[in-house]
Amino acid sequence: MKVYVPFSPEDPKTRLSPVLTASERAAFGRAMLEDVVGAVEAVGHDPRVLATEPIAGPFETVVSTAPLSDAVNDVLTEHFDGTGGDGSEGVAVVMADLALATPEALERLFEPDADVTVAPGRRGGTNALVVRAPEFRVDYHGASFRDHRDIAERAGLEMKTVDSFRLATDIDEPADLIEVLLHGRGRSREYLTDVVELTEREGDVDVVR
Amino acid sequence: MKVYVPFSPEDPKTRLSPVLTASERAAFGRAMLEDVVGAVEAVGHDPRVLATEPIAGPFETVVSTAPLSDAVNDVLTEHFDGTGGDGSEGVAVVMADLALATPEALERLFEPDADVTVAPGRRGGTNALVVRAPEFRVDYHGASFRDHRDIAERAGLEMKTVDSFRLATDIDEPADLIEVLLHGRGRSREYLTDVVELTEREGDVDVVR
Repeated sequence: MKVYVPFSPEDPKTRLSPVLTASERAAFGRAMLEDVVGAVEAVGHDPRVLATEPIAGPFETVVSTAPLSDAVNDVLTEHFDGTGGDGSEGVAVVMADLALATPEALERLFEPDADVTVAPGRRGGTNALVVRAPEFRVDYHGASFRDHRDIAERAGLEMKTVDSFRLATDIDEPADLIEVLLHGRGRSREYLTDVVELTEREGDVDVVR
Repeated sequence: MKVYVPFSPEDPKTRLSPVLTASERAAFGRAMLEDVVGAVEAVGHDPRVLATEPIAGPFETVVSTAPLSDAVNDVLTEHFDGTGGDGSEGVAVVMADLALATPEALERLFEPDADVTVAPGRRGGTNALVVRAPEFRVDYHGASFRDHRDIAERAGLEMKTVDSFRLATDIDEPADLIEVLLHGRGRSREYLTDVVELTEREGDVDVVR
């Protein structure tokens, strides 16, 4: 299955600024991308970075300067046009900041034979999805999980969800780095352990430089 | 399997004060407890509320005024003393504020045949665990997931983890209510929908009264 991984290399992960410099955020964002792409490859699927500009590295890359939802919908259209509207193969979109993604977690995403399979992110996000129905389109703005559920329902499509902490954890804020340090297994954890560390104060866990 | 659900009825969930009154927090905490106990019963296990004081309702209750870790360790000691140190049956501890817990998610917790099975919570927490090794003891203070991993390792015990968004999501802060509204299926969601609602502003999702 083709698995598109949206990635924007320009000033990435600004909300991590309180703990990481601009160049550290770039390196860390890149490490997360490599972890996600590697996990997709490890389960035998075909990752393609859907990037806002050309990026260096051993990635198959598709460049689109369109906003995220439009770029993904273009990819869905092209995929299903290419299959003559046959949804049996499906196509997936997995966010590049899922630093905890493992092959096992991704297998649970790819497995269900539903029209649409979604791995919800926290705060209403959609962190990963598999589309097997040519008529489905995405809308990542706001509470996209709810929107995707509504879009599927209106189109009479079956939507399944994957209950995964690893896929629900996109890395946006300093507190999210706790999860990478504790549960990460790849390059992003390795990178991070050189720069920050866990602290505990009065039972509260946090991350400091 | 006996499944202990720690619960403190006194001034519960204070960090929800920005959006819920004291009596609403009490009612909501109670609704979450009922959802967790119901989900445990639905998978055929034997829930017991481990309460800091007697509570009303159709619950089998064990009262302990000891701090959480001590109360749970007393329960573990008693359980394994009662089985003559035989860990084959196991005993579980599931937090009362896992409002998203479903029978399916709990089945994945009870399933692995490991010495210790942990469902990690965010920020290093331990939201649920199953203990099949008489020598294991808990320490819920701070980054308890890491502590439990270390305790198991030092004792030569095998620890497995369950990758579940539903079990990772303990409801502590206002932002956590987003998850209950979007993904809850039980009484806690029902209660909450009468009091608060989701909002979106510039793509950010939040909860307001």
